[in-house]
Amino acid sequence: MPISTTAIVSSKASIGSNISIGDFTIISDNVVIGDNVSIQSHCLIGQPTPLSDGKPLIIGNDSLIRSHSIFYEGSRFGSKLMTGHCVTVREKIEAGENLLIGTHCDLQGHAKIGDYVRLYTGVQINHASDIGDFVRIYHYSVLTNDPHPPSNMVLGVKVEKYAVIATMCCILPGVQIGENALVGAGSLVRKNVEPETVVSGVPAKYICRSSEIKLKDGTNQPAYPWMRHFHRGYPQKITDEWMSIYDA
Amino acid sequence: MPISTTAIVSSKASIGSNISIGDFTIISDNVVIGDNVSIQSHCLIGQPTPLSDGKPLIIGNDSLIRSHSIFYEGSRFGSKLMTGHCVTVREKIEAGENLLIGTHCDLQGHAKIGDYVRLYTGVQINHASDIGDFVRIYHYSVLTNDPHPPSNMVLGVKVEKYAVIATMCCILPGVQIGENALVGAGSLVRKNVEPETVVSGVPAKYICRSSEIKLKDGTNQPAYPWMRHFHRGYPQKITDEWMSIYDA
Amino acid sequence: MPISTTAIVSSKASIGSNISIGDFTIISDNVVIGDNVSIQSHCLIGQPTPLSDGKPLIIGNDSLIRSHSIFYEGSRFGSKLMTGHCVTVREKIEAGENLLIGTHCDLQGHAKIGDYVRLYTGVQINHASDIGDFVRIYHYSVLTNDPHPPSNMVLGVKVEKYAVIATMCCILPGVQIGENALVGAGSLVRKNVEPETVVSGVPAKYICRSSEIKLKDGTNQPAYPWMRHFHRGYPQKITDEWMSIYDA
Repeated sequence: MPISTTAIVSSKASIGSNISIGDFTIISDNVVIGDNVSIQSHCLIGQPTPLSDGKPLIIGNDSLIRSHSIFYEGSRFGSKLMTGHCVTVREKIEAGENLLIGTHCDLQGHAKIGDYVRLYTGVQINHASDIGDFVRIYHYSVLTNDPHPPSNMVLGVKVEKYAVIATMCCILPGVQIGENALVGAGSLVRKNVEPETVVSGVPAKYICRSSEIKLKDGTNQPAYPWMRHFHRGYPQKITDEWMSIYDA
Repeated sequence: MPISTTAIVSSKASIGSNISIGDFTIISDNVVIGDNVSIQSHCLIGQPTPLSDGKPLIIGNDSLIRSHSIFYEGSRFGSKLMTGHCVTVREKIEAGENLLIGTHCDLQGHAKIGDYVRLYTGVQINHASDIGDFVRIYHYSVLTNDPHPPSNMVLGVKVEKYAVIATMCCILPGVQIGENALVGAGSLVRKNVEPETVVSGVPAKYICRSSEIKLKDGTNQPAYPWMRHFHRGYPQKITDEWMSIYDA
Repeated sequence: MPISTTAIVSSKASIGSNISIGDFTIISDNVVIGDNVSIQSHCLIGQPTPLSDGKPLIIGNDSLIRSHSIFYEGSRFGSKLMTGHCVTVREKIEAGENLLIGTHCDLQGHAKIGDYVRLYTGVQINHASDIGDFVRIYHYSVLTNDPHPPSNMVLGVKVEKYAVIATMCCILPGVQIGENALVGAGSLVRKNVEPETVVSGVPAKYICRSSEIKLKDGTNQPAYPWMRHFHRGYPQKITDEWMSIYDA
């Protein structure tokens, strides 16, 4: 499937080679799409906004944008972006390679996202969020930014690399989640979370060191750092690097 | 952009002047749209339902409906309605002016909404909800209505004016949230919340008077009532009125 | 409304009699749709995926799929399926009759769903979930499946028949919710829930027997089992059966 005859593609858009664009999808003017990109049906790509300062939407090579998704102009995504369906992504996001944006995620823009980040269904990311490489955030979790809503202050959440935020967590403004930390499902996080620790609850409290959580697969090996045993969706060169650390 | 040639607009719909209708949007028969209204692409506006009792969908002047949104016939919105993307709005809502309905909000209908209300991403409003002027409800919060689901009872939530419900709160059926109250993020609210108070937790408990929360911007001024310091998105005449109260 | 001229319907799709297909909807090749089925506008039906093992999407007779919904190939739904808007449904779901999938629900596939199940707005169902007949799951509740995310283990949630999961609950991996149980709103469920019991809280704890919850309608009758007093949306033959039990 190349470019559908029912798609509406601006002649001003810059589009790479080997592109597929689905039915009823709109590609606006201020868009730069790399090679080998597939955009499914019913999408709205490059929606104009004065908040973009005129910057284009840039989608890296080898990306897949699933149906009914909405991207504004003014954000930049590295190669191998993959989205679920019905995602909304606003301006001024700077994202690395290999980002997954799950179905119904809402990225409000003005945020920084590292490489190989995974955002599952319905994750909601607000302005000034800063998400490190290999971070994983699960279903319906929210990174907030207003310490006393409504106000004129914006205190973004910072999530350090390899950290995991499980399902249905609310991270309060200005909180930092440390490297390799785990936030248990259903937590409300008010305070910074130390690296390599597990917190849980409403409000979230320290539970244990990450390494104390054991795999339930019979091996009784530590479940964290997860990079030791979980490699699905990461390229060989990355997992080789991880294994060289843990085998050392 | 006036009316797209790919839009499907019923000749029975009543449409004002200076309207824009995006690509692949459908406007059904029983719709009354004011002047200076912009409806983006991929919307479904005026979906018929027997539950509307034949009443039209009325959209006031100067409104903006963003892409992929769905409105049924039988609800009425004042001027300056603004939506995010992918909102769903059912019949028999009576809403005032200047309503914001954020991305992925789901309004089930049969509800009353005042002027200048702000509903952020994924807010879910059930039948018999009654939301006062200037109320602000944040991401993924839900106003429920069934005291012992499933049942034939419908006990709507009432939110009094200026009240704020922060992110990921669940308000149980029949609860009243008083004027100028604040419900902290991640709360489950089982009991009425007194005016000018802060509650938080699962279940939510009294924390302090609203005025005891201080701004974290260095001024140490009270963060609530928020109308004293937060004016973004409200017209000058409104904020002048607020300031005249607080300067008195 | 029969099949819209703006819909794109594969000639390879198998489509029953008395079908309506809305504007801008796409029906792919590997789809089997029964009789008297209505599919609204802007849908994507039968999205191909290698994970389907080539199996078709099967939609039973007398079904209604509302606008902006997305179904992959490889799942099977009995008669009288009804969806809200913007639902996403992936492959390898085996579902019974009379399933309701509410607006913005996300069904990740590889799951089993019984007859007469009700899923309200934004319910999120992960792989290996097993949902019994007459189960009701309310807004934004999530059935998780990874005991220490991310990992290679998949421990599905099992919900036994007639059980009710109220709004904004998170059910942890491998948990079983017993027959006729009630999980109160906003709960995080870590342990199995015994049949005929009520649990609530973060984490959820035993509250009482289901039968101890009384209707607030003045009758003071037990609110559970709910089948005694709540019949909306169920066919007469089913409710007759229920009443014969409770009148005995």
